[in-house]
Amino acid sequence: MSSSDLTYAIIGSGALGGYYGGRLAHAGAEVHFLLHSDYEYVCEHGLAVESTQHGDITLPSVNAYRRVEDMPRCDVVVIGLKTTSNALLPALLPPVVKDDGVVLTLQNGLGPEDDAAAVVGAGRVLGGLCFLCSNKVGPGQIQQQRFDHIKIGEHAERGVTDRMRRIASDFEAGGVRVALDDDLPGARWQKLVWNVPYNGLAAVLGVDCTVLMSHAEPLVRDLMLEVVAGAKAVLDLDIPIGFVEKMLENTRNMQAYKPSMMIDRELGRPMEVEAIYGEPIRRAEAAGCALPKMRMLYEQLCLIDRDKRVDEGSPPV
Amino acid sequence: MSSSDLTYAIIGSGALGGYYGGRLAHAGAEVHFLLHSDYEYVCEHGLAVESTQHGDITLPSVNAYRRVEDMPRCDVVVIGLKTTSNALLPALLPPVVKDDGVVLTLQNGLGPEDDAAAVVGAGRVLGGLCFLCSNKVGPGQIQQQRFDHIKIGEHAERGVTDRMRRIASDFEAGGVRVALDDDLPGARWQKLVWNVPYNGLAAVLGVDCTVLMSHAEPLVRDLMLEVVAGAKAVLDLDIPIGFVEKMLENTRNMQAYKPSMMIDRELGRPMEVEAIYGEPIRRAEAAGCALPKMRMLYEQLCLIDRDKRVDEGSPPV
Repeated sequence: MSSSDLTYAIIGSGALGGYYGGRLAHAGAEVHFLLHSDYEYVCEHGLAVESTQHGDITLPSVNAYRRVEDMPRCDVVVIGLKTTSNALLPALLPPVVKDDGVVLTLQNGLGPEDDAAAVVGAGRVLGGLCFLCSNKVGPGQIQQQRFDHIKIGEHAERGVTDRMRRIASDFEAGGVRVALDDDLPGARWQKLVWNVPYNGLAAVLGVDCTVLMSHAEPLVRDLMLEVVAGAKAVLDLDIPIGFVEKMLENTRNMQAYKPSMMIDRELGRPMEVEAIYGEPIRRAEAAGCALPKMRMLYEQLCLIDRDKRVDEGSPPV
Repeated sequence: MSSSDLTYAIIGSGALGGYYGGRLAHAGAEVHFLLHSDYEYVCEHGLAVESTQHGDITLPSVNAYRRVEDMPRCDVVVIGLKTTSNALLPALLPPVVKDDGVVLTLQNGLGPEDDAAAVVGAGRVLGGLCFLCSNKVGPGQIQQQRFDHIKIGEHAERGVTDRMRRIASDFEAGGVRVALDDDLPGARWQKLVWNVPYNGLAAVLGVDCTVLMSHAEPLVRDLMLEVVAGAKAVLDLDIPIGFVEKMLENTRNMQAYKPSMMIDRELGRPMEVEAIYGEPIRRAEAAGCALPKMRMLYEQLCLIDRDKRVDEGSPPV
């Protein structure tokens, strides 16, 4: 294991930020964690990351902070918050990014790079797509079940840059497989092919992916095909039908998997409705492409989430 | 009050059949009630119909039966069952309809007349649309909150027939306002304009009409417009946009009204998914008209109702 001399700030150290930050720190990188409810526990007991894949990690002493003003400015600021908290970014990012530092957002859906770019400028933003199943099982305790690889790309340009490679090598030193993607917007639309049907339908109907596949596969497929149509309209991207079939086939073999949005609803947490539905729909409609079933699912989710949408700017219509 | 000499059999004496049967009997008609779980209670205590509109009725002694084989053959057999029980009609109707008798189905959605016609022949079927808010509040105890008028029409022909008038006069003798409709299929599509959005969305999302109007009115309207498109494709019927606006406006003024399908879901009863969604969608699609949002709602309802659909023939795809 080796690591670069980049310093990392983890904004939002939950199941996602805590996991990747823990792996970076375990590999020797200098990592600073912003914590909220777990701050005191982590100060006292450190951070634990369980993984059947990589073995368990214990970090008895971590650089923990309650406020960004107390953190050192870092080279790479990793956003591990839910997109529903992005209204906080103008307050959270400036104190903690070095003048020549970058922001790497690991958030879901479409638009997280734009939220970060509005604060630090488009040229200093990278995005990461996480294929990760992990949960916070207690204060400072992250459990990774399977998958943890990441796709990283630049927000403001196509191509693979040197800073992408440096960040990737730090993650890889921590055992995380990283793919460098020269088309981040395309990768984000492609990821929506899975996220759009399963997250929303599971949350609205209260059933896991296995039930969706055995009782609503035609609807799942229709929603996937709308995402494909949206990607074509917005990016002129051709997502092959074989990719849709592969997503369906992969999900058929998952054992009773609950998508994150279903878990968010069960736990009474806000759902990432705008990032996964509102923003893609608005972009597709602006390009002249209506996505009727996706819009219906969006409107259903907005209704379900109506009491938790105070922080989100975009109205559903 | 006066009544004809028609005899009536009420098949399914719940909140709907019990209400109208009670009013007919109170007005002096000969009425025979098929009962299931309430049979013993009604034999002993009779039937009570509460109504703030008409005053309360008590029928201390009613003609109650547990099996159709024990009932006399009647001139008018009124179907008050849920459409989800229509697989029982071939067993229920023949023993109780006179050779020259008719069946009047008061059921929801599209298709109930066809189910009855398959048993007794199309020329002997009439349909009624009920605009009724009533509940069964205890064994043999019906409570009517508001509305109770009916639209009656012939199944196999256009126009107003003599037998429609005779039945109407019996209902009117019982205080029920009746409209004679010379276009029953058109009236059924028109009623779907309200039933399709509110029943399904309320059942799927678990919210009443007030919440739907304040948080999902665009979706409600889209579904109404799909019903209008379906009526045009199937019947070449023009439902004016003003009718849609009137339904929206009326519902805006309802106080926290729960549609029947939402109540069915809450009580774990089967929902009338095929009559209100499956059948209209199949007819519209056969006429070349896709109803994407209505189909999505249908597929969601089929999933929710998956364990209760054993008796229904039609698969969702």
